[in-house]
Amino acid sequence: MSDVLDQLAQVLEQRRSAAADTSYVASLHKAGLDKILKKVGEESAETIIAAKGCEAGGTTSDLVYETADLWFHSLVMLSHLGLSHNDVLAELERRFGLSGIEEKASRSL
Amino acid sequence: MSDVLDQLAQVLEQRRSAAADTSYVASLHKAGLDKILKKVGEESAETIIAAKGCEAGGTTSDLVYETADLWFHSLVMLSHLGLSHNDVLAELERRFGLSGIEEKASRSL
Amino acid sequence: MSDVLDQLAQVLEQRRSAAADTSYVASLHKAGLDKILKKVGEESAETIIAAKGCEAGGTTSDLVYETADLWFHSLVMLSHLGLSHNDVLAELERRFGLSGIEEKASRSL
Amino acid sequence: MSDVLDQLAQVLEQRRSAAADTSYVASLHKAGLDKILKKVGEESAETIIAAKGCEAGGTTSDLVYETADLWFHSLVMLSHLGLSHNDVLAELERRFGLSGIEEKASRSL
Repeated sequence: MSDVLDQLAQVLEQRRSAAADTSYVASLHKAGLDKILKKVGEESAETIIAAKGCEAGGTTSDLVYETADLWFHSLVMLSHLGLSHNDVLAELERRFGLSGIEEKASRSL
Repeated sequence: MSDVLDQLAQVLEQRRSAAADTSYVASLHKAGLDKILKKVGEESAETIIAAKGCEAGGTTSDLVYETADLWFHSLVMLSHLGLSHNDVLAELERRFGLSGIEEKASRSL
Repeated sequence: MSDVLDQLAQVLEQRRSAAADTSYVASLHKAGLDKILKKVGEESAETIIAAKGCEAGGTTSDLVYETADLWFHSLVMLSHLGLSHNDVLAELERRFGLSGIEEKASRSL
Repeated sequence: MSDVLDQLAQVLEQRRSAAADTSYVASLHKAGLDKILKKVGEESAETIIAAKGCEAGGTTSDLVYETADLWFHSLVMLSHLGLSHNDVLAELERRFGLSGIEEKASRSL
């Protein structure tokens, strides 16, 4: 399942160079970083709202949908700045493979 | 690389039941959904700020770090509500395996 | 200048009961709290992006515009939940008229 | 009531030049724009969470508190960039005194 991110990254790179009027990904890159970041902020708010809806007895499907939107737009952001999901996964691996997460446990809430 | 999410999800589940004073993950679950969502919002803002810093000539390491924090806290959120990264990856797969992303291309910016 | 908020609150209440297709305010109330909160999150992200643009040498007009959008949508949110700007101003007055802000100074960054 | 913003702006300017270890406002300015913007993003998320709590039957006091935090940190942001609440109020006045808000009504949701 988790090679989905690899496949998605490939698709995102292919579509980056498509015509902006035929690909949402291309239109985001063309609109520029501010537009992409606006979407990251927007989807983050929608994820929070959907999670509260979930807690209040709503279905989980909205939350899954909004989180997918959040991850998707953060992948476009990474790609726009010459990075990829692998950079983020390497950071997460470094943290939990070694002592990163435990280290964070020592931070106060 | 991308089975990192599978491994991380396992670690997150193990730490969920740890004592809250020894594990950051356990302390988040104990503090509750609002605390977890506050972190999602906070890390989203920090991701946006880091991306703008990147654009202005800063290093990419801050952006990778903040995006890892954003994904990490969204994984804790999913886990807190009985979901996992697989639900989100399945949604992303559904979109790009079939027609989801292209469909989204038809939305106006 | 600062009775602008009083006047604006009056206008917002008048437009709340207008037809949704003739008033943006009425359309927000009709769409419901989640829609209003989504706008608060979105305008917050746009404010952050505009402030970083400002810092990088851009004009201040975008930041003023986005902050106005953020305050405007937070006023609609308050109104939707039976509150007003006066509740928020009273809280701010309480803090700085007495010792609130200094008290906050003792919190660690 | 609404000259609270004028008074608060004065207090914020006075405290800006205080020692960072005795004033929260001074400590924010010293920490810099990114720290201030991080707080804007954080308080925006907390406002959204509190509003959803309100809707689910919680008290309104949390929402008033978080909105005050959001406005407070956006005032510090404006001050840090050489602007004030008057710039934002003038923009709001321009919109609703003339045709701004109605104009916005024509935007699609």
